[in-house]
Amino acid sequence: MSDVIRIDNLFARRSVRNFTTKAVSDDQIELLLKAGMAAPSASNLKPWYFIAVTDRATLDHLAEVHPYAQMLRQAPLCLCVIGDPGINERYWVQDCSAATENILLAAVGLGLGAVWLGVHPRPERIDPIRQALRIPPELSPLCLIAVGHPAETPPPRTQYDSTRVHHNVW
Amino acid sequence: MSDVIRIDNLFARRSVRNFTTKAVSDDQIELLLKAGMAAPSASNLKPWYFIAVTDRATLDHLAEVHPYAQMLRQAPLCLCVIGDPGINERYWVQDCSAATENILLAAVGLGLGAVWLGVHPRPERIDPIRQALRIPPELSPLCLIAVGHPAETPPPRTQYDSTRVHHNVW
Repeated sequence: MSDVIRIDNLFARRSVRNFTTKAVSDDQIELLLKAGMAAPSASNLKPWYFIAVTDRATLDHLAEVHPYAQMLRQAPLCLCVIGDPGINERYWVQDCSAATENILLAAVGLGLGAVWLGVHPRPERIDPIRQALRIPPELSPLCLIAVGHPAETPPPRTQYDSTRVHHNVW
Repeated sequence: MSDVIRIDNLFARRSVRNFTTKAVSDDQIELLLKAGMAAPSASNLKPWYFIAVTDRATLDHLAEVHPYAQMLRQAPLCLCVIGDPGINERYWVQDCSAATENILLAAVGLGLGAVWLGVHPRPERIDPIRQALRIPPELSPLCLIAVGHPAETPPPRTQYDSTRVHHNVW
């Protein structure tokens, strides 16, 4: 495996919003979550929980309560990434975001497609998702990840912009 | 390239805090930043900037002002990931965290080692780093990433914990 191929895998991760109805297997779900939990976290405190939603009625309900989650009517899987501010109030958003990115990249590795749907810090998204998934009040859903077998394949890309880069000092 | 190897790459990302003094090349720095900017961001707004620090005096100074950055006295490169709340106040932390995780994974792909050093939201870290790197007041450093050729190789791992996983509902 060349270094270039490894890097290209990062470029191949694109937001996929169209899925076939084929299920994501239990083994694949576990690998996605293993990837998520391989993310770094501040002081290795791992302030995260995950709900794997495959129930069709629940997926349809999530599509109703999140304004950009219509693809959950097709997608066979939604992972809800949940943070625990009681474990690390300062860094839980960063840690759960790293876990989310790992899951998106693992999906590419498994031939799946996925898209990150923002939830936190919008109360109008947090509240109905909390209610739908019965998330305890002391925890907060960071995001939803729609996952499935892709019905579209956006080409790899970086969005590298040299004007965003400084050397040694701003 | 098998799916398993791609997934394993995520498990191979471990925090590396010991480096040789060998430089990271300009091409490698650009690839790391291309990986960072390939991350997803909310509404694709890309609320990020990066400073690549290779100047020895600046690296030593950063080691002085961040309590867990002693490895910057050895490391040949520090990337500062900077967010722009003016571009997206709600999601810049999440977006810049995804970019940071991509950089850490790209480092693995290049045979380099790296570690994420938290900065935001601690003012006692933000302020001296802002001053050292002359970061504009409307922006905020999210983190520092120490990068170099690894002088240690922690074994791959996931920290998968099935008690963190729920199915369909909490």
